[in-house]
Amino acid sequence: MTSSVVTEIHVSAPGKLILHGEHAVVYGKAAIAAALNLRSHLQLKQTTDGNLQLELPDVGISVQFALASLESISFSGSLEDQSHSDEDILVIKNFAGIDVNSCEPKHLAIVSFLYVFCSIFKNKSQWPSLRVHFKSDLPVGAGLGSSAAFSVSLSAALLQLAGHIDSLKLADGITSWSNEDKIVINKWGFICEKIIHGRPSGIDNSISTYGGALKMQNGQITHLEKMPQLSVMLVNTKVPRSTMVLVAGVRQKYNLYQDVMEPILNSVEAITKRAENIYQECSTNITDDGFKALGDLVDLNHNLLNAMGVGHASLDQVVAVTKKYGLHSKLTGAGGGGCAYVLIPSDTSEELLSSLKEELNALGFDVWSKTTVGGLGVLRDL
Amino acid sequence: MTSSVVTEIHVSAPGKLILHGEHAVVYGKAAIAAALNLRSHLQLKQTTDGNLQLELPDVGISVQFALASLESISFSGSLEDQSHSDEDILVIKNFAGIDVNSCEPKHLAIVSFLYVFCSIFKNKSQWPSLRVHFKSDLPVGAGLGSSAAFSVSLSAALLQLAGHIDSLKLADGITSWSNEDKIVINKWGFICEKIIHGRPSGIDNSISTYGGALKMQNGQITHLEKMPQLSVMLVNTKVPRSTMVLVAGVRQKYNLYQDVMEPILNSVEAITKRAENIYQECSTNITDDGFKALGDLVDLNHNLLNAMGVGHASLDQVVAVTKKYGLHSKLTGAGGGGCAYVLIPSDTSEELLSSLKEELNALGFDVWSKTTVGGLGVLRDL
Repeated sequence: MTSSVVTEIHVSAPGKLILHGEHAVVYGKAAIAAALNLRSHLQLKQTTDGNLQLELPDVGISVQFALASLESISFSGSLEDQSHSDEDILVIKNFAGIDVNSCEPKHLAIVSFLYVFCSIFKNKSQWPSLRVHFKSDLPVGAGLGSSAAFSVSLSAALLQLAGHIDSLKLADGITSWSNEDKIVINKWGFICEKIIHGRPSGIDNSISTYGGALKMQNGQITHLEKMPQLSVMLVNTKVPRSTMVLVAGVRQKYNLYQDVMEPILNSVEAITKRAENIYQECSTNITDDGFKALGDLVDLNHNLLNAMGVGHASLDQVVAVTKKYGLHSKLTGAGGGGCAYVLIPSDTSEELLSSLKEELNALGFDVWSKTTVGGLGVLRDL
Repeated sequence: MTSSVVTEIHVSAPGKLILHGEHAVVYGKAAIAAALNLRSHLQLKQTTDGNLQLELPDVGISVQFALASLESISFSGSLEDQSHSDEDILVIKNFAGIDVNSCEPKHLAIVSFLYVFCSIFKNKSQWPSLRVHFKSDLPVGAGLGSSAAFSVSLSAALLQLAGHIDSLKLADGITSWSNEDKIVINKWGFICEKIIHGRPSGIDNSISTYGGALKMQNGQITHLEKMPQLSVMLVNTKVPRSTMVLVAGVRQKYNLYQDVMEPILNSVEAITKRAENIYQECSTNITDDGFKALGDLVDLNHNLLNAMGVGHASLDQVVAVTKKYGLHSKLTGAGGGGCAYVLIPSDTSEELLSSLKEELNALGFDVWSKTTVGGLGVLRDL
């Protein structure tokens, strides 16, 4: 029980990148996602003004609620719950003055914040007066898991404050939590994600909690033991799209042309398996042959996503430009715009990267020159 | 025997368009090809100067040989042969002053001309003095079967002159040959094609001889009984490419990533089967639903060809431009440049077609606005 002495808790959590298998995963095929070294940072500060403040400047949220009023709502959830209750969501929406039918992620982020707070502190005699500030390196709504980074870091900070988990200094100087604690963090991260997104896969919060890389298939998430640190250039086309519409479009094509679509999904699964094998075999360092094969697989995967109908001219522009530099890229996530990643072999020169970045910037895209995937999950920053 | 009275024979033969299944056909999957209404025209004129003249202005060929010298070469082939002999090819190359190692189609067209001539007239007491002039609507070397149109019309004209086949006036006023005669024309067309191309599939000469559409699978060619007349816009990107290099590239990918490539080929085969079904069901008139489905299949097929690695930026430009007009297109043939076709539903306005043509012309492409596929094979033009 450390909550009484804590006045400030800093937590960071990574975003995620789907490397292979997006869309195919909906049809029971494997997908691989990995932690991005673009991280989100949450500061939790105990205050004395009797308010609960939430600031998410990235999405224009700055709200505060009187603790006394919050304590008086009829909230039935508890720390042991495995999921949220729709009644409690209604109670919180009413309390926060949010339309019960609102599906706006901004509103739902506030709801999830209040929900986790109430669940965690429900049985505490005194509810803490708090200011929570969240800032992210990740673009919002770009399929890079910014909301999971929020959900996980929020859960970790609140659970730590309440004394339900206890951070540990690890050998390499970083501070994080035990696997048992991470199970609790991940559970609450997932509950937040469900409040925000309806039916998320659980990939994003798992990556944000555990880091590294994981495989998802038929709802089962398996940690990839030997994920190498992989360098990628991340490109955000900033073309807005709706994941729901894109997923529905693939479903429609699948229903109309199952005999054509099923082998395409099988091909994607073969790509995912091969990529997994390369990561396992080259766990410390990806060889030249490994990069060559990954490049081929990335090309194939991108074209198959185009065949599924989730491509976009802007994404093909990214692919065409990177090809000129001898590099390989694919869309990541839902497609139809959003982000692409470019594989960066270890011997790629800084000059090449900076010319490529310049060219992509000139097309109006945001570029993170050299990010890595496969890094650490949620951390307590001191 | 009509040769003695004939002084001029005009023959025309169509080019071909691969609708679906290119490259996949190499792996035992079905492909569908159809006759194009872009035709080649051959004029054979009996002369009295004792020479054999061949003029193919499209490829810059204008040669003549003294009949007397040709009659003295030691040529062993005959009309009954099912294929050419390498010895005879050597003899003819020597006679024509062509390097024995030359693989230039121009040179080989001359060789095939002399080869067929010698085979057909070998046992005739008098060899005819001739001028053969060949002109085509088809671009050369663009995968539209211009060489097969030459091979087939040349064979038809020479066989007719020699009296081995006999043209017939058909009910609708056209003049062609019986199916028995077409078998002979096609055989000699195929021999010419083999002399020019090494190991052609036999699709091109079959289409050029019989017209309509056919399915090719595992070396078996089946005529599609109910092919509707399908309107397409034909676009020649004029980007040069080598069919051999492209076929080898797919083979390399297949050998490296068979588990990924095999389902892609299976998907293409499912597309080809579905397209065949639509042609069979809509044999007189393609319905709106038929066009909708064909459009989807064309999109899928193009993207899968991209996945195989035989796409090209110019072909994707064609696809992107036609998409703006609500139309669907795919590369046809070997890819890597060359031609694409755009499906033209029956209700497409002339205004739309002319704007689209203009935009594609502005990109440097040659465009045949509204060609049809599925038309007549070799004809004797009067």
